[in-house]
Amino acid sequence: MTLKVGVIGTGMIGQDHIRRLTHVVSGAQVVAVADAEQAVAEKVAANLPGARVHTTGAEVVADPDVDAVIVCSWGPTHEEYVVASVDAGKPVFCEKPLATTTDACLRIIEAEGRAGRRLVQVGFMRRYDADYRALKQVVDSGAVGAPLIFHSGHRNPSVPAHYTKDMAIVDTAVHDFDVSRWLLGEELAAIRVIAAKPNSQGVDLQDPLLMIIETTSGVLVNVETSVNIRYGYDIRGEVVGESGTAALAERGPVVLRSAGSVGVAVPQDWRERFIAAYDVELQEWIDEVSAGADPTGPSSWDGYAAQVVCDAGLAALYGGERVEIRLVDKPALYT
Amino acid sequence: MTLKVGVIGTGMIGQDHIRRLTHVVSGAQVVAVADAEQAVAEKVAANLPGARVHTTGAEVVADPDVDAVIVCSWGPTHEEYVVASVDAGKPVFCEKPLATTTDACLRIIEAEGRAGRRLVQVGFMRRYDADYRALKQVVDSGAVGAPLIFHSGHRNPSVPAHYTKDMAIVDTAVHDFDVSRWLLGEELAAIRVIAAKPNSQGVDLQDPLLMIIETTSGVLVNVETSVNIRYGYDIRGEVVGESGTAALAERGPVVLRSAGSVGVAVPQDWRERFIAAYDVELQEWIDEVSAGADPTGPSSWDGYAAQVVCDAGLAALYGGERVEIRLVDKPALYT
Amino acid sequence: MTLKVGVIGTGMIGQDHIRRLTHVVSGAQVVAVADAEQAVAEKVAANLPGARVHTTGAEVVADPDVDAVIVCSWGPTHEEYVVASVDAGKPVFCEKPLATTTDACLRIIEAEGRAGRRLVQVGFMRRYDADYRALKQVVDSGAVGAPLIFHSGHRNPSVPAHYTKDMAIVDTAVHDFDVSRWLLGEELAAIRVIAAKPNSQGVDLQDPLLMIIETTSGVLVNVETSVNIRYGYDIRGEVVGESGTAALAERGPVVLRSAGSVGVAVPQDWRERFIAAYDVELQEWIDEVSAGADPTGPSSWDGYAAQVVCDAGLAALYGGERVEIRLVDKPALYT
Amino acid sequence: MTLKVGVIGTGMIGQDHIRRLTHVVSGAQVVAVADAEQAVAEKVAANLPGARVHTTGAEVVADPDVDAVIVCSWGPTHEEYVVASVDAGKPVFCEKPLATTTDACLRIIEAEGRAGRRLVQVGFMRRYDADYRALKQVVDSGAVGAPLIFHSGHRNPSVPAHYTKDMAIVDTAVHDFDVSRWLLGEELAAIRVIAAKPNSQGVDLQDPLLMIIETTSGVLVNVETSVNIRYGYDIRGEVVGESGTAALAERGPVVLRSAGSVGVAVPQDWRERFIAAYDVELQEWIDEVSAGADPTGPSSWDGYAAQVVCDAGLAALYGGERVEIRLVDKPALYT
Repeated sequence: MTLKVGVIGTGMIGQDHIRRLTHVVSGAQVVAVADAEQAVAEKVAANLPGARVHTTGAEVVADPDVDAVIVCSWGPTHEEYVVASVDAGKPVFCEKPLATTTDACLRIIEAEGRAGRRLVQVGFMRRYDADYRALKQVVDSGAVGAPLIFHSGHRNPSVPAHYTKDMAIVDTAVHDFDVSRWLLGEELAAIRVIAAKPNSQGVDLQDPLLMIIETTSGVLVNVETSVNIRYGYDIRGEVVGESGTAALAERGPVVLRSAGSVGVAVPQDWRERFIAAYDVELQEWIDEVSAGADPTGPSSWDGYAAQVVCDAGLAALYGGERVEIRLVDKPALYT
Repeated sequence: MTLKVGVIGTGMIGQDHIRRLTHVVSGAQVVAVADAEQAVAEKVAANLPGARVHTTGAEVVADPDVDAVIVCSWGPTHEEYVVASVDAGKPVFCEKPLATTTDACLRIIEAEGRAGRRLVQVGFMRRYDADYRALKQVVDSGAVGAPLIFHSGHRNPSVPAHYTKDMAIVDTAVHDFDVSRWLLGEELAAIRVIAAKPNSQGVDLQDPLLMIIETTSGVLVNVETSVNIRYGYDIRGEVVGESGTAALAERGPVVLRSAGSVGVAVPQDWRERFIAAYDVELQEWIDEVSAGADPTGPSSWDGYAAQVVCDAGLAALYGGERVEIRLVDKPALYT
Repeated sequence: MTLKVGVIGTGMIGQDHIRRLTHVVSGAQVVAVADAEQAVAEKVAANLPGARVHTTGAEVVADPDVDAVIVCSWGPTHEEYVVASVDAGKPVFCEKPLATTTDACLRIIEAEGRAGRRLVQVGFMRRYDADYRALKQVVDSGAVGAPLIFHSGHRNPSVPAHYTKDMAIVDTAVHDFDVSRWLLGEELAAIRVIAAKPNSQGVDLQDPLLMIIETTSGVLVNVETSVNIRYGYDIRGEVVGESGTAALAERGPVVLRSAGSVGVAVPQDWRERFIAAYDVELQEWIDEVSAGADPTGPSSWDGYAAQVVCDAGLAALYGGERVEIRLVDKPALYT
Repeated sequence: MTLKVGVIGTGMIGQDHIRRLTHVVSGAQVVAVADAEQAVAEKVAANLPGARVHTTGAEVVADPDVDAVIVCSWGPTHEEYVVASVDAGKPVFCEKPLATTTDACLRIIEAEGRAGRRLVQVGFMRRYDADYRALKQVVDSGAVGAPLIFHSGHRNPSVPAHYTKDMAIVDTAVHDFDVSRWLLGEELAAIRVIAAKPNSQGVDLQDPLLMIIETTSGVLVNVETSVNIRYGYDIRGEVVGESGTAALAERGPVVLRSAGSVGVAVPQDWRERFIAAYDVELQEWIDEVSAGADPTGPSSWDGYAAQVVCDAGLAALYGGERVEIRLVDKPALYT
């Protein structure tokens, strides 16, 4: 069965997902698109035989030929399209963030509550990365004992001019927050954010940052964000357990011996690092949704929890020494 | 455009390719199958909506609904189905070996000569492995200077009971032969095969073996086959150039610190090691063939050349000190 | 010229230094010993041709045949012997801690002030470890840009029964404190200590700990102590700079491929890890002191500063969120 | 007890050993020197309080104050000084080669036979390298099963102008020969030498070379010599056993992440790589000889055997396809 997908938002990420649905993964077809810039949507659709162009995202959701929706539009519009999809009983994959406020996230959760089932998946693609999955498997196997500390390093060679101080939390560290929750299987309870001497390439950014996050059971998550570190896009992670540690390995496929050193390449950007994770993420979503099952990937709850941690992180960044992370009670749907 | 594929041979490998065409890669559909065991073909087809079961491979080739053919049947039958496909003007992907004798390989080459175009691709999947491709890219970049030696290690934890002495050459080292030709971009010219003290787990196999192969320009290929080495399925490769070396890196995604050591896992079998290469191999073949282009993967010539090296390798194993590898003149189609 | 050394304290560490002076390093001879347990001193001296046994450390210092003194006695006695050596104008190597209170450290500093020269060296042996020295060399070379964060991991497989909660700071992390000061070339200014969920093997120890230390210029030192981690004695260190990072490498000399994994051994205890550093430490001290030069190794100031950081660390462990580290003005002798 | 040593030959290597005896290792004193260039010997002695300068090596050996002799003179003179030392009953450490012909080596063996004890040690310092020792320990532990193949890589960044084709065997690979015999605990029985396409930086050298050597039990030693490989001085070694492999690890102490790659430094020359091995080699020799024991390091037999392998290697290089290595019967003294 081919899953007929409607894509709302045909900018860079939307186009990449359309390419993936059309040329990479199996079992899906893009049948409808819409974009705030109608011309862009039409240009994209021109290469998609049989795809309709709608003038609004709401029309994409309502299109009876659309089985499932992918939302790649501007963050502030996510809530509307996701809730509409849920209310229409259509599975919806929403790129991160789920919504731009915790209240909006809670309204999506309420919509799913009304529907009585999970219909939403949020695009936290790291959970689909082969290396993170192998890390989780090793940790879950008990090979290092119960986790006590998780060191998570998030390094970018540089950031664009529009990158603001807050984005180190809400755009960068949010991935570390989500992956920590998933890897450790519990919620985050408090956060400290401490700025190091600033990197001269981004002085007003408060970069790098160290964050110490406590989970509900007391595991410490130790996040380093360094977003101007030039040498590469390098995602590090080490779980320190009671009897050992498990860490993400180097990824370079070739050991080069040259000019006095021996080493491997570091990825140059997030695309190179996580491209395969996006493929797996969409393939698994298509497989589950096509089979009529609820998605098992990152849920609305995960999107909400990440948002709350970001808010606490910003409060800590702006002066709280240790800021507690307070979540509403978790609906049974997500347990 | 969906490529309509007929699969001849629905045993283990055939079924795996069918799974791949149906659930993993994009742009193909299995429309016809056949197998020496008709019941097996029927069972496989039962899960493929709209797929026909033919009683012979020839019928699969002749089926007007079949755009392209995949041959996964028993080696001795390859020649017949491949030649039939070529004569029918249909692209054909043939699992290795291309054929079981050099004469049979040459007859396939003649068929392509008659067709005046490349229609055949042979299943040397290592060329599609991400790590080997990265290795070739580094070597081709000149980062280590002109290649002078290629160390290739082929290690299996164990081999099945039916594995014979010859298979170390024709089943195992044949991959090293093909990958050497591809990596270095030239033909192999002579081979020595020297047996080490035998592994006690396979005494009558003459295992491990060292092979020293000379290319036409004088590069040395140094192959180690160790097919009873227990610890894992480990494919090693290092190109020694004029100014440095480039080698396949370790693949384990998780660095585990436990019980006095720090390390990564080694793959346990060829499937784990090369599963992704098979996916890429088929996806690229589908993409090229669907677009009406001739395939650019391993050709009939590559299948033939590998066969000639295997014959020379066997002669060297059975007593020749240094056996020359003599190829016919290479038809222009393959240059 | 052979340096004639008197050793005060002939317990485990004292005996090890005597073995080193006698059989490993060049240019020194042990001529006098003393120990609180006279019988132990006599037993040790029996293997040292020509060595005298004194009844007190003071007599060792006063012995006219003694050129230089090594203090390996119980911590609370350090001040007395070190000050006596300084007052006698004799170079003195004192095992850590320099003294057990900051006041005592300051009295030693005052003694050196009276002497008008540096005569004291403290046994912070990590500064003599080949790997740490290579790390400092790389950092100082500018290869990673200005340091912004230093991750320091201190992992012990287990600790003895008498190990108390405080010792994670004053016995374990003190090495990280000293090495941070040395590596970064500046003082530490504030410290946070955060306990993780406790390791089940040492629940009342508050183990592991994370510490975040700020240097005067704002570099963050991120210390992890895990003293019950079973898998090995593992000292980690990574300096994150503006454009790259430099880290201590794995030390295992043999890559073992066995039973599904590939890896190297981790040291099993501090002795295995730092034995060579002790040799270099003493050899360099002997060379400098024999040549009539003041020692250039860790000074009284370094011993004092480490003590102050320990005190702040304990205050933070016992409830201060962020505790400032306040040093007296640094005498010119140490700049 | 201080061992009184006479050094014959005060060129580069002799001076380095004198420095080592005087400033690095424990328990020895240089009391006499001689050199073909008397002026050099006198200059060297000027820094050695109490050392006598003799006009000939024979006088050094005969000097009653000399307990033991170190021979660092020109290769062709080794036999004379070593035999004289043996006949005088004095332990003698001889830099490699033991002698320049197998006949000369045999005459030294005969001298030891007359003496009825081992007095000679040959300077194969690799046996004292910490990494090689760890490798041997792992192999001897059975961790990889019985050894079947030993891959030995010997890479130099460049060679001096006077380096000839033969030196790849007698100066370079001779170390691989010795270390193979020591590591595997058996003699080498036959050798093939195969030249690769020449490195453009040393075309007339036949560089690189591959050698396949068979031991008496059938283990294969696979030597690669690449003496113009620019990138560094890189000594590789991997023992392939029945159930795993053990290899020399990378040595760089610092992992540098910079400019798109992560890696460690490779040594730049043999001095950097083996400096510590020389220290250990001499210290152990001094300890054994001072204690009145016969040396347990590389013996005259080892020096002889290496010479025979070199001769066979040259014969193979100059055209023998497979050249047998034939040793005289091994005297009981060396078993």
